[in-house]
Amino acid sequence: MSDPRRPQRNFFSAGGIDRASVRRQDEAWLAARLAHPSSRFIPVWRLQTLFAADADAEPIFLSAREAEALRPCADSTILLGLVEGRAYFAVGFPSEAPEPPTDLAELGQFQDLRRVAALLDREMGGLLAYARAMTYWHCRHRYCGVCGSPTVPIHAGFQRLCTEEACGQQHFPRTDPAIIVLIRSGGEGLLGRQPTWPAGMYSTIAGFVEPGESLEDAVRREVFEETGIRVESANYHSSQPWPFPSSLMLGFTGRAANHDIRLRDHELENARWFSRKGLRIGLQNGAVRLPSPYSISFRLIEDWFDAGRQGYLRKVAGLT
Amino acid sequence: MSDPRRPQRNFFSAGGIDRASVRRQDEAWLAARLAHPSSRFIPVWRLQTLFAADADAEPIFLSAREAEALRPCADSTILLGLVEGRAYFAVGFPSEAPEPPTDLAELGQFQDLRRVAALLDREMGGLLAYARAMTYWHCRHRYCGVCGSPTVPIHAGFQRLCTEEACGQQHFPRTDPAIIVLIRSGGEGLLGRQPTWPAGMYSTIAGFVEPGESLEDAVRREVFEETGIRVESANYHSSQPWPFPSSLMLGFTGRAANHDIRLRDHELENARWFSRKGLRIGLQNGAVRLPSPYSISFRLIEDWFDAGRQGYLRKVAGLT
Repeated sequence: MSDPRRPQRNFFSAGGIDRASVRRQDEAWLAARLAHPSSRFIPVWRLQTLFAADADAEPIFLSAREAEALRPCADSTILLGLVEGRAYFAVGFPSEAPEPPTDLAELGQFQDLRRVAALLDREMGGLLAYARAMTYWHCRHRYCGVCGSPTVPIHAGFQRLCTEEACGQQHFPRTDPAIIVLIRSGGEGLLGRQPTWPAGMYSTIAGFVEPGESLEDAVRREVFEETGIRVESANYHSSQPWPFPSSLMLGFTGRAANHDIRLRDHELENARWFSRKGLRIGLQNGAVRLPSPYSISFRLIEDWFDAGRQGYLRKVAGLT
Repeated sequence: MSDPRRPQRNFFSAGGIDRASVRRQDEAWLAARLAHPSSRFIPVWRLQTLFAADADAEPIFLSAREAEALRPCADSTILLGLVEGRAYFAVGFPSEAPEPPTDLAELGQFQDLRRVAALLDREMGGLLAYARAMTYWHCRHRYCGVCGSPTVPIHAGFQRLCTEEACGQQHFPRTDPAIIVLIRSGGEGLLGRQPTWPAGMYSTIAGFVEPGESLEDAVRREVFEETGIRVESANYHSSQPWPFPSSLMLGFTGRAANHDIRLRDHELENARWFSRKGLRIGLQNGAVRLPSPYSISFRLIEDWFDAGRQGYLRKVAGLT
């Protein structure tokens, strides 16, 4: 169970938008929204979002007229939904292009959403994450996996259809469920690090759910594979869309049945039990770093570390 | 929170198998397992599983020698994992073929897993569901979505690789997360029915999680779209792999903020508030039917209906 004193909704969830899914097949309504002066278009190129060059994390949206002019070089136009009556669309530009369209490059700078996420408010973070996730799905599904023919977007970008008549497969947006878990043993928490991470960075244990697994099965398997720790109980905490590129993080807490760490599959370079004191000292002397405060991993660590003293980890980590 | 008196693991989760994921790239080990007399191969054709024709739900497994003979007409061979040291593989046969290979047709009958699930034990149900899910993924990803070239299976069937050198995309098994929820209001529970279902059949509200959504966002959106009910709180219950064809069901309970039902998106033909008494009478006089007892939907309804009187719904529904 998540701590009821914290907001249930994690960063990057686009819960504030009305997805207007009943409108996705309403061609007349869609055409009107595509042309409407109040509509806004979020350009995405190479999974990056366009921000004003001279401001901190001010995303650039296009008007209907600007988007219309760029449509010939766009890959996909997707109805994200409505916010206070205004329609938002995502527009994906080809990832192969070494440069973004000139008209866009002049408006600002394309940046990775993770680099600026800490500066965005919750609603904007959710909207941009959603735009990134949808455009990524389109670039990865230009051809039919069943027959190899080209596919075309329909239903406002929420389906792609195989153009080979004899096949005609429908393809739907893909989201990859992954578990992420803070395992406890007595007063300690289990964190690990991958070899490619910055020095001193530790995070919770995570991995993709495989076909045929429940979330709880996946928690037990991943923790055992990566650390040799047997999970005695796994309890759901919260979830977070994580469009880097297409994950849905399913957060858990769990209790360990044993204490001896063995890196079985060598996905991790190291895994350690941290006491609260050990983590505090590591953070204070700079030997240990944690994931970004907008990640579900940070929230899982925070809920364990704080143990009710709300804001304690953020204070220790110098975030407040 | 699930009722602690019930087993946490839902049917169709293959939690009892050691997936041996560290062995997936160990070609020598795999070759030895493919040839080993103790290994077993689960044939899947058109998403159906092979059962003995003269027995109730006795699945037919192939030996290494039988599987070897059939390999030229198989689509995919996937290492599922180890159970008590014995390796299990899934073998997918082309879905386009109007008939299964003769050698298999002689051994028994291909049947939909759902038709016989109630007769299977928990471990067998999980294993066969896992085999079905993996073979389905292979038939749907024979071509690269990025460039349209053929893909080939690698890593014991847990990855497909694009054969076009300039592309070389890796493709991983796909699982589609979907929420499923029992909404309560006072003493009543919210159930709906789709127009294609058998007469009188009602189930919990369900739908796919979309990119950019947390599970909790998806619960709120789906319930509102399908029934016009606003969800006040959503609490995780349990999860269930549902390979029909590739879902992962994420079960929730929730409380309604309003009571007036409006079928907004018309995915449902009807939605109703059921009191416990109304559901009991409907089940007893045959006017109402519920989903199979091995589904997470039944479990959600059962936990609400029983309200601690364990086994009550099963008794009322004539299942015990």
